[in-house]
Amino acid sequence: MPDVRHAIAAVMSDPAQRKAGSPVCEVRELPLPELEDGSALLRVEFSEVCGTDVHLRDGRLAGVPYPIIPGHVSIGTLEAIRGSVVDIDGKALREGDRVTFLDVHRTCHRCWHCLVAKAATRCPKRKVYGITYGVEDGLTGGWASHIYLKPGVLGIRVDGVPSERYMAGGCSLPTALHAVERADILFADTVLVLGSGPVGLSAVAFSRIRGAGKVLCIGAPESRLEVARLMGANDTLDFTSVSDEERFAWVHNHTSGRGADVTIECTGAPAAVTQAMRFTRDAGRVVVVGQYTDHGEISFNPHLDLNKKHLDVRGCWGSDYSHFHRAVDMLRTEPGCRLWDAVRLDRYTLSQVNEALDAVEAGRVVKALIEPTV
Amino acid sequence: MPDVRHAIAAVMSDPAQRKAGSPVCEVRELPLPELEDGSALLRVEFSEVCGTDVHLRDGRLAGVPYPIIPGHVSIGTLEAIRGSVVDIDGKALREGDRVTFLDVHRTCHRCWHCLVAKAATRCPKRKVYGITYGVEDGLTGGWASHIYLKPGVLGIRVDGVPSERYMAGGCSLPTALHAVERADILFADTVLVLGSGPVGLSAVAFSRIRGAGKVLCIGAPESRLEVARLMGANDTLDFTSVSDEERFAWVHNHTSGRGADVTIECTGAPAAVTQAMRFTRDAGRVVVVGQYTDHGEISFNPHLDLNKKHLDVRGCWGSDYSHFHRAVDMLRTEPGCRLWDAVRLDRYTLSQVNEALDAVEAGRVVKALIEPTV
Amino acid sequence: MPDVRHAIAAVMSDPAQRKAGSPVCEVRELPLPELEDGSALLRVEFSEVCGTDVHLRDGRLAGVPYPIIPGHVSIGTLEAIRGSVVDIDGKALREGDRVTFLDVHRTCHRCWHCLVAKAATRCPKRKVYGITYGVEDGLTGGWASHIYLKPGVLGIRVDGVPSERYMAGGCSLPTALHAVERADILFADTVLVLGSGPVGLSAVAFSRIRGAGKVLCIGAPESRLEVARLMGANDTLDFTSVSDEERFAWVHNHTSGRGADVTIECTGAPAAVTQAMRFTRDAGRVVVVGQYTDHGEISFNPHLDLNKKHLDVRGCWGSDYSHFHRAVDMLRTEPGCRLWDAVRLDRYTLSQVNEALDAVEAGRVVKALIEPTV
Amino acid sequence: MPDVRHAIAAVMSDPAQRKAGSPVCEVRELPLPELEDGSALLRVEFSEVCGTDVHLRDGRLAGVPYPIIPGHVSIGTLEAIRGSVVDIDGKALREGDRVTFLDVHRTCHRCWHCLVAKAATRCPKRKVYGITYGVEDGLTGGWASHIYLKPGVLGIRVDGVPSERYMAGGCSLPTALHAVERADILFADTVLVLGSGPVGLSAVAFSRIRGAGKVLCIGAPESRLEVARLMGANDTLDFTSVSDEERFAWVHNHTSGRGADVTIECTGAPAAVTQAMRFTRDAGRVVVVGQYTDHGEISFNPHLDLNKKHLDVRGCWGSDYSHFHRAVDMLRTEPGCRLWDAVRLDRYTLSQVNEALDAVEAGRVVKALIEPTV
Repeated sequence: MPDVRHAIAAVMSDPAQRKAGSPVCEVRELPLPELEDGSALLRVEFSEVCGTDVHLRDGRLAGVPYPIIPGHVSIGTLEAIRGSVVDIDGKALREGDRVTFLDVHRTCHRCWHCLVAKAATRCPKRKVYGITYGVEDGLTGGWASHIYLKPGVLGIRVDGVPSERYMAGGCSLPTALHAVERADILFADTVLVLGSGPVGLSAVAFSRIRGAGKVLCIGAPESRLEVARLMGANDTLDFTSVSDEERFAWVHNHTSGRGADVTIECTGAPAAVTQAMRFTRDAGRVVVVGQYTDHGEISFNPHLDLNKKHLDVRGCWGSDYSHFHRAVDMLRTEPGCRLWDAVRLDRYTLSQVNEALDAVEAGRVVKALIEPTV
Repeated sequence: MPDVRHAIAAVMSDPAQRKAGSPVCEVRELPLPELEDGSALLRVEFSEVCGTDVHLRDGRLAGVPYPIIPGHVSIGTLEAIRGSVVDIDGKALREGDRVTFLDVHRTCHRCWHCLVAKAATRCPKRKVYGITYGVEDGLTGGWASHIYLKPGVLGIRVDGVPSERYMAGGCSLPTALHAVERADILFADTVLVLGSGPVGLSAVAFSRIRGAGKVLCIGAPESRLEVARLMGANDTLDFTSVSDEERFAWVHNHTSGRGADVTIECTGAPAAVTQAMRFTRDAGRVVVVGQYTDHGEISFNPHLDLNKKHLDVRGCWGSDYSHFHRAVDMLRTEPGCRLWDAVRLDRYTLSQVNEALDAVEAGRVVKALIEPTV
Repeated sequence: MPDVRHAIAAVMSDPAQRKAGSPVCEVRELPLPELEDGSALLRVEFSEVCGTDVHLRDGRLAGVPYPIIPGHVSIGTLEAIRGSVVDIDGKALREGDRVTFLDVHRTCHRCWHCLVAKAATRCPKRKVYGITYGVEDGLTGGWASHIYLKPGVLGIRVDGVPSERYMAGGCSLPTALHAVERADILFADTVLVLGSGPVGLSAVAFSRIRGAGKVLCIGAPESRLEVARLMGANDTLDFTSVSDEERFAWVHNHTSGRGADVTIECTGAPAAVTQAMRFTRDAGRVVVVGQYTDHGEISFNPHLDLNKKHLDVRGCWGSDYSHFHRAVDMLRTEPGCRLWDAVRLDRYTLSQVNEALDAVEAGRVVKALIEPTV
Repeated sequence: MPDVRHAIAAVMSDPAQRKAGSPVCEVRELPLPELEDGSALLRVEFSEVCGTDVHLRDGRLAGVPYPIIPGHVSIGTLEAIRGSVVDIDGKALREGDRVTFLDVHRTCHRCWHCLVAKAATRCPKRKVYGITYGVEDGLTGGWASHIYLKPGVLGIRVDGVPSERYMAGGCSLPTALHAVERADILFADTVLVLGSGPVGLSAVAFSRIRGAGKVLCIGAPESRLEVARLMGANDTLDFTSVSDEERFAWVHNHTSGRGADVTIECTGAPAAVTQAMRFTRDAGRVVVVGQYTDHGEISFNPHLDLNKKHLDVRGCWGSDYSHFHRAVDMLRTEPGCRLWDAVRLDRYTLSQVNEALDAVEAGRVVKALIEPTV
């Protein structure tokens, strides 16, 4: 049990300098911060392990200031506040409040991307807890007993949302909500979700809640597809058991031979992007939200897959505060919020984060939570 | 000089059955039609030769009912009308009126594509004069003394638009207008047009008219780029003289290192689609309108070129009546309409259509017109 | 029991010529039509009485060719088909199929409104069964044993949708779906519906299905508000019991003092339009779909209610085939389709249509169905 | 000539405390500020007098902290900078640079309006130079020799834009650009502008630049209408000489009897809002940007003017940085930028601001500039 003056955290080493056999993450004691004015200390109840954390472990993301404390989306209780910390309604957060916060910090709102392009998720100034903040920046990740909420961090009280339900979605919530928003689903559209990881599952649920007529999901393994069906998919297909042609036929059988109105790619495999274009009907929409790291190139046919189809293909990067805010609200909204209760949660301590990373990579768990005990 | 009872037309043979050395097109006498109720006979003043006609010659388009009379966009004078033929305002067209017409016919307005997807350019019932209508369907192409305007064909009186100005745009007008509309240009955006054929040139002009801040064009040869500058491009680059890296650097030098807000691909080369994605800024828009026939696959990086960039990539197929109507109106609108006067017109008789096809393919002419004399 | 050679219908007389004490509607025998090629005869299972029918009774709509057979949305069984009648997928409808059809007929798809403005619901050529078709046009309303589906009428097989569930929505389905589509609801938005008639109730349900966070409804009487709550309203207010100020306060209490993100006006009272503007937050959206007949003028403050609020106010007229098609599909989509099962159905025979009109006008029934027996 | 240690400014007194006969504005010496880090001092070349300044004089705006220095849009030269002041590209502004700046300051980017509604122009924290900043806040208006650019103020170097051309638009530039952007003009649309003050004139020019087919303007007096025609209006109507019916007829004569596709209201008269609705075609768009102060209520017919017309009516409040930035860029863009050269500029010294206010109110000048000399 740590001294009250210290936090404990699972610290991930730099993959470029990691020696064979040395652990990816080690539990360390770190000093609790002196709170600046307008900052707070969050006692972590849960953080999570997501696909990005596996990429972090393997050094697949650029600009990461290792060593870092992973864990970008977390929930917990405010243990200490210095000065005034308010939510976006201007209401003061209080010690003892159960809150979550937007992992993206320092969106500048005064650069060309923010103010002219209105593309805040591409602001070059933004920092992300657990990803582009490192140990040097303090307690800036969720695999820890405490997180330091720096001045300007945007927190939300999660009244009315059980912590487990919120973490069942976790970082997939704003990501998938943004993707579904960008998909411009119309009433009764058929939505095809490629991928059954956390983002795919949340995309299934949000599509169901959004008024889709039919939601289809292609993914693996069957244990996740079962969750997809519980979260709103009318039918699922295990892609490991079928050829590309069979997948195409399956989609067309479900869509009067036309393809899906909307396809949301949440896989991480480059080939899925070309497939998404082929699985979608003429004049439909493809949202690409699964390509968060560089897995190389893929080929497609610009005439057949894009131009003749009059297709819209939309990359979807990150999320802004609105997606986070609306996602938390949706987890309060009956009856759709109950869809996330279908997600099985596997819990790991700080000492077990390396096992958790392995389990996430292998797809053995649907959602891995970190409970910051040793 | 043809008998008054006959029309003359340049008829294109089926490339699949064409013998070595035999001509692509031959001038033939064809009977003038019995006019059905609601139909009309157009005496052709000008038709044109466009890139699609080269594809037709080479058998690159599917579903073409050879032999055909090419020439999809034309202008002329109504020589005979049977019954009532009205424009979309319900006003009767009269014999002697100078008109053009929408080459797309028989959009059904009762299928799923028309009524639910609202994607009329993907209606499977539509027929296109000069492309998917053949000689069996009558005088259905512009490389002829006469065109048979079947019942339901949508014609427009071109009062106030000189025939040469209209044909300087020709089929590129609705195509480029549709692409520019779909590009969602904002005031002061930088628009990059790839390609300096007729569609590229009209895209330059429409972007200029639309409120773009800077219009850039990458194409070739210099003779066309000169026209691009006269039509509104602030700067042009001859792609034949530079490497991919130099093109990229040229675009970035023009755009504060960010890339174009909007890129409109009008080239026909698959590689240009990937380049368009790379030349465009984060959260920008790419419209792909140049891939009208299958030139094979191209590779791209879904992470770097699409997802991380939060890019919109929009295929743009065909045009509907609104694009045609608005394009004709824009050719009446000062001062922008004068931009098309920069296009050099090369005129060919029906006997010279094979030479015209060669000249278009080689890029030796900017716009080749057919004057239906022998 | 009518002769097999005849239909029976409740025929509404011309209000301008109706004598005091004479009945509004009378049951008449009418000849069954000779079917034209591409037409069909529908044996009516249910039609309905809606607010528009009360306006028709009172002569409040322009251009109605009395005498008419009211009943614009109906469901039934195809009794006879001549030639081929296909749905929008091109699949043949068969005798014995249970179908409904789009009451709007003859949208021309060749006028300026259809093709340039793309505002098909304002096409001047369109005719509406039960409203702008009269007895002279044949069996063109649902308050009858049979409806003549003229060539070109767009029918849908309602497989998987119980007739009662479909008629619980009836004509409010495409109307409300169109309004909700036009409202651009975002995830977790608060939607305020003004009015608890059939359109208001369907607007509540579609808003719930669309991903709204909170749905509020102001209407009357309590019996309808109870249905609104069952159909997805989080809270309701009986406007008859409160002042304007109290209504305003109620909305603001529910919306952190900001007003609703979206307000959908479905009342028919001009004053509700100004209230809708006042009940909506800055930069929100108001959809006006309840003003289907002229009840006079109302005043508002352009500075306070519109300009300073940066408000969007959107009139919403009629519906096109897409709204009808998507609405039928939504009534097949679990779990949302069950919301309509909360609507109490009151059934009337053809002899009772005058009573049904009175009951609808008085708000004594939620949904009045006509079963075409005597 | 002022001491180098002081600025001079025309200070407007509080209308509520102004005694009869006492001047509205008086020239005063005010101390130059100690520059905070990140701030700058602008030597004013020109400021302007706009309609809002007349409202300020008359006490028609709420929340104005009199006494104030009016003049919200200005241009000048940076005389002193403390620390680093960068533009939105991150490039440092330098002493001696000719710049303008966004009059809106302190948009918070962390409230519900900014982050969830994405309606930054309704952010309650924003302050406006010359309007909601007062003398107590320092040199915060343009009717002065100097303006204090507080930390965070967003400035733009106006290279390539003559100061007179920029001030010919002045505060109407971002306002009108925002309105035209919000109008969603399509190629060849007919745009009707109501009002021929500065906002109306800039709306005419931006509509012309945006690809409108025909631009119409109803205003007064003839001297301004002449400028409207030079700035792109195809035709104008002096409303003082005609009845409402004649105005309606004039619009309909110009629009095939349908009304304008888009109407932009820039008058300030409540009645113009109802007229805008009546002058617009079915399914068209009305943008209301002229109602910047409360002139009371007006009545309209929700059935005829809104619902049956399927009309979009859009309030348009303020502008954000993007509108300002794009407007400055458009004043660099040939050939459209030359349209503003048609605006006659009347110049006033600080001692003449009261006369300038009178001239603006009376419509005797098109654009009144303040040159801050005595």
